[in-house]
Amino acid sequence: MYEVELKLRADHDELREVLADHGADHVDSRTQTDTYYNAPHREFAETDEALRIRYEQPADGESTTKLTYKGPLVEAESKTREEHETAVDNEQALTGILSGLGFEPAARVEKNREFYALDGYTISLDTVADLGEFVEIERATTEDEVEHVREGAVDLLSQLGLDPDEQIRTSYLGLLLQGT
Amino acid sequence: MYEVELKLRADHDELREVLADHGADHVDSRTQTDTYYNAPHREFAETDEALRIRYEQPADGESTTKLTYKGPLVEAESKTREEHETAVDNEQALTGILSGLGFEPAARVEKNREFYALDGYTISLDTVADLGEFVEIERATTEDEVEHVREGAVDLLSQLGLDPDEQIRTSYLGLLLQGT
Repeated sequence: MYEVELKLRADHDELREVLADHGADHVDSRTQTDTYYNAPHREFAETDEALRIRYEQPADGESTTKLTYKGPLVEAESKTREEHETAVDNEQALTGILSGLGFEPAARVEKNREFYALDGYTISLDTVADLGEFVEIERATTEDEVEHVREGAVDLLSQLGLDPDEQIRTSYLGLLLQGT
Repeated sequence: MYEVELKLRADHDELREVLADHGADHVDSRTQTDTYYNAPHREFAETDEALRIRYEQPADGESTTKLTYKGPLVEAESKTREEHETAVDNEQALTGILSGLGFEPAARVEKNREFYALDGYTISLDTVADLGEFVEIERATTEDEVEHVREGAVDLLSQLGLDPDEQIRTSYLGLLLQGT
């Protein structure tokens, strides 16, 4: 599975009005606490990989814990990566497994996400602790369709009054580590 | 969590009769397919660790997939190890995560297990592909109670007409790799 994802800074109050005007559906909201791990055998900052445990609490519903691996970029323009993710039952056991194997927690990102659906894309209004307000537009796709889906995302951002040229390619983790 | 575990070769037909005489309860039966992984940064055969994906199909019930890490021995006599295990929702994603991190499947163990409960212990009649029939006696405990629980397991094996001195300390994986 490939994921096309573009991110910008955006004022959420303004953007909510524009999304309502375009008939976007508010799907749900949730808080996410992400813990990123260092590897014992690679420097993820150099190999451009990530290993993450995400604890997620939906506004309505049960909390979940997921383990995610993100591989290096396969398409730099849209930050497209190969990604594998599975839910796990026992977060404490998972941290024990990673610790036993020599992986260590390196950084934590906490955010609230407010999801909308529009034209087949997911639009998320992200409020990130210590960083501020952002919008992300995302869509899962196949390797063949990556470019097509990326162009659609750029068009949709323009329709919403946002400037795709202001795309931020640095992850929230990266922005936090930069102290931006 | 610590697990005390002793294993012997045993004729299952005979042992079923002895267990019935002792009033043991047949709890359930299941097949387990274990895939053991190599690490990219350590030689698990030397560090005495294991990383395993277990796919399990109960006689009655839904299949599950679990990820397990076993640390080095903390008490050699009873094969006591620190162990962390969590169920995962998506086996394919989990293998993708391990592969992305550089872990590779090294060996596979397939077995049928028939579980009985007796005196607080779990007794499993294991039929292992390419190896034959075994019995395992197991109990989870705390670090402080390891020795006490191990002595209880030895006593119980004797009561069942088995000889604790015939304990096999090599794992099924090890026996398969030895070609025993």
